[in-house]
Amino acid sequence: MPLTIADIGAAILKTEYAVRGPIVARAQELERQGRTVIYCNIGNPQALEQKPLTYLRQVLSLVSWPELLANPDARWPEDAVSAARAFIAGSKHGIGAYSESKGVRFVREAVADFIRARDGIQADPEAIYLTDGASKGVQTALRMLIAGPQDGIMVPIPQYPLYSATITLYGGRMAGYYLDEANGWKLSRVELEKAYEKAGSEGTRIKAICVINPGNPTGSVLDHDNIAMVLAFAREKGLSVLADEVYQENIYREGESFVSFARVLEESGYKDVSLFSFHSCSKGFMGECGLRGGYMEIRNLPAEVVAQITKLQSVSLCSNLPGQVATYVLVRPPLAGEPSYALYAKERDGILGELRSRAALLVEGLNRIPGISTAAITGAMYAFPKVTLPAGKTDEDWCMALLEATGICLVPGTGFGQRPGTAHFRTTILPPTSRIKEVVKLIADFQEKYR
Amino acid sequence: MPLTIADIGAAILKTEYAVRGPIVARAQELERQGRTVIYCNIGNPQALEQKPLTYLRQVLSLVSWPELLANPDARWPEDAVSAARAFIAGSKHGIGAYSESKGVRFVREAVADFIRARDGIQADPEAIYLTDGASKGVQTALRMLIAGPQDGIMVPIPQYPLYSATITLYGGRMAGYYLDEANGWKLSRVELEKAYEKAGSEGTRIKAICVINPGNPTGSVLDHDNIAMVLAFAREKGLSVLADEVYQENIYREGESFVSFARVLEESGYKDVSLFSFHSCSKGFMGECGLRGGYMEIRNLPAEVVAQITKLQSVSLCSNLPGQVATYVLVRPPLAGEPSYALYAKERDGILGELRSRAALLVEGLNRIPGISTAAITGAMYAFPKVTLPAGKTDEDWCMALLEATGICLVPGTGFGQRPGTAHFRTTILPPTSRIKEVVKLIADFQEKYR
Repeated sequence: MPLTIADIGAAILKTEYAVRGPIVARAQELERQGRTVIYCNIGNPQALEQKPLTYLRQVLSLVSWPELLANPDARWPEDAVSAARAFIAGSKHGIGAYSESKGVRFVREAVADFIRARDGIQADPEAIYLTDGASKGVQTALRMLIAGPQDGIMVPIPQYPLYSATITLYGGRMAGYYLDEANGWKLSRVELEKAYEKAGSEGTRIKAICVINPGNPTGSVLDHDNIAMVLAFAREKGLSVLADEVYQENIYREGESFVSFARVLEESGYKDVSLFSFHSCSKGFMGECGLRGGYMEIRNLPAEVVAQITKLQSVSLCSNLPGQVATYVLVRPPLAGEPSYALYAKERDGILGELRSRAALLVEGLNRIPGISTAAITGAMYAFPKVTLPAGKTDEDWCMALLEATGICLVPGTGFGQRPGTAHFRTTILPPTSRIKEVVKLIADFQEKYR
Repeated sequence: MPLTIADIGAAILKTEYAVRGPIVARAQELERQGRTVIYCNIGNPQALEQKPLTYLRQVLSLVSWPELLANPDARWPEDAVSAARAFIAGSKHGIGAYSESKGVRFVREAVADFIRARDGIQADPEAIYLTDGASKGVQTALRMLIAGPQDGIMVPIPQYPLYSATITLYGGRMAGYYLDEANGWKLSRVELEKAYEKAGSEGTRIKAICVINPGNPTGSVLDHDNIAMVLAFAREKGLSVLADEVYQENIYREGESFVSFARVLEESGYKDVSLFSFHSCSKGFMGECGLRGGYMEIRNLPAEVVAQITKLQSVSLCSNLPGQVATYVLVRPPLAGEPSYALYAKERDGILGELRSRAALLVEGLNRIPGISTAAITGAMYAFPKVTLPAGKTDEDWCMALLEATGICLVPGTGFGQRPGTAHFRTTILPPTSRIKEVVKLIADFQEKYR
């Protein structure tokens, strides 16, 4: 007997991951048939014409073939050469050997420096784990937190489906708390309490609350008070906090800025709230999704729990070393006065400027379409517009019909969660500016016929 | 309340991974205190002076910074340039974008070509998943197979602790079958039947049998008949097969050769035995542990099960792209007549020749020490010698005392499993030839005093 679907665990069968679900599968099928597909389903910037940062790729080419380092020519600026030499010396064996399970200590020290400089707080390299993208860090944290079928994790609705998928796979329960769409998707203590009470009444033991800031898919950004409120709530209920901060560089509105959970935690002086924070090389203006670099930082965890995390990390040995190089450059980019700074700053500002103008263009365009309305995109890389549907139709129907009619690939709101009776879709802001206009026009024409 | 050890699931606490366990932790501590440590605990060739293959690193440097490709100078041979161009064209967006969940199709096609050429059988690129090292592939397969606490996986004793750790973590049961130490660690139907019966009597539902060929830690190599026997056994009992073939290039003895499970399965004509096979960039003569490249190939799995595997893979998006580049070079190295072939062949033969002579040196040296005896190392990168201990001492005591006395870091046999009443240790054959002699002498002097 071959392995059959009846042999597969229920948790696997129940797991859903809409970002690469049936709509995407259909899009790939259409593409193979010769149709042009505009992929707005996934935050994959370099698949939509974003260029990598030159400095990072210079460093990466040098560590990849260290013979180049022996005698680099003028194509490589001095600071890229020094960074590559520093990585090879710091890792001892370069990118071809397993590192420590937590990742190269030299890179973890650079991450700690970055956190100190960003937040003005202490940071410990031994509390930092280098991970294959942020996803693997999130999965490690959830693995530690879900100890049995009663264990629940509070997750925003809408959320990024990595959370729902992983919680389901690990046999835990997701306790969704609603974000306030009418109020720019803000997060309120009232909704946290409601969700906590509801979970309790269902016999769920809430272990942690997860916050995505800036928000995916909502694009909203939390301020200092919001974060302090979440931490106070977590403390009161005895919860750990997962802070998904992978979009910390993607903030587009004047007057808004990123505040880390780590900073507010340290300012609060709480020693009894465990915090897991995540960052990534895949987002921001680096956009290096394929390199799978990122880190997890932990605070207020007893040494014996830390040892368990390290043990789990060691079973798959270590995160990939080119991703560790990317993480090094993420936290230690060229500084003002260094040879690569001007180009680096130009590329960075170019990418963020483009994203900012696309975000504005998309929101303005979508809000002109009858039956579609969206909040402003303050941060991250997505809009999550509400769409009014004819009776009997779901957002999945709408997205599939849009794909068939226009070649635009979006993700239905169901994949992220939404209030009952509402329908949404998620779109990235990543297509080049000229195509954003085309996307808006195609959606407008389609929606007119669909209603 | 911060997260405490009491909040952590029992499965995590029970999980053990000796290759990076307490002995290694102590070794790192000694190293920080200024002691010289000889790490023989882990198959990490580039941490022990093995050089990377020039051709791979040339290709990797070019795909890392594609600007080099626009005008590569004479340092890059033509075939490395073509391979880099082919990868970038084949992946569409280079190494900076997420690939398909299964990995870049172009690389999967190259893997299928490699399997066809190696085994003379058909191979389907859609049945190949590119993974972050083989470990992640093994974990995916075990995830699919362990659906509940009664589910068991047959694993050799001794085994590589990735298996025991992952089975424990996923809440399944490990059913060990003994390899025959007196007979070069060969595998026999009798032992398979015994283990299967025993598991059945304990209420375990065996779902699969795992085979490591060449063996880790045993160094033994299976022949065609052995493999056919395992497949017939699996068929009779309705089991899936996991074939860990990461050491397929590491065969040192005249007259022995690697035979894949895929080949014997196809020759047998069985359509009712599901097979998961694993290969890696970390072992062989490539030894690129840090790049985390590898693949899993599946056979005889229904489409709906394949869809579940792809869904799980998609939750963490894709394996790292530099690892996918390494996998491409693993399966499509320079061929005779191509510009890089001579250097590639020289490096390959140099590394394999070194490993062969170290294996012989180590076995001969260890077998001269009273109280230590080891089988010949036919394949892989390890010896697993038996050691006679004073009453009341364990192999863990012995390894720790050896570390303290000599700085040699080995892994105690307990971490791999062994027959009750016996004691072993695992050592790699990776230290440079001059140090192998030193290692043997240090162990001999230590053992004389310890007995």
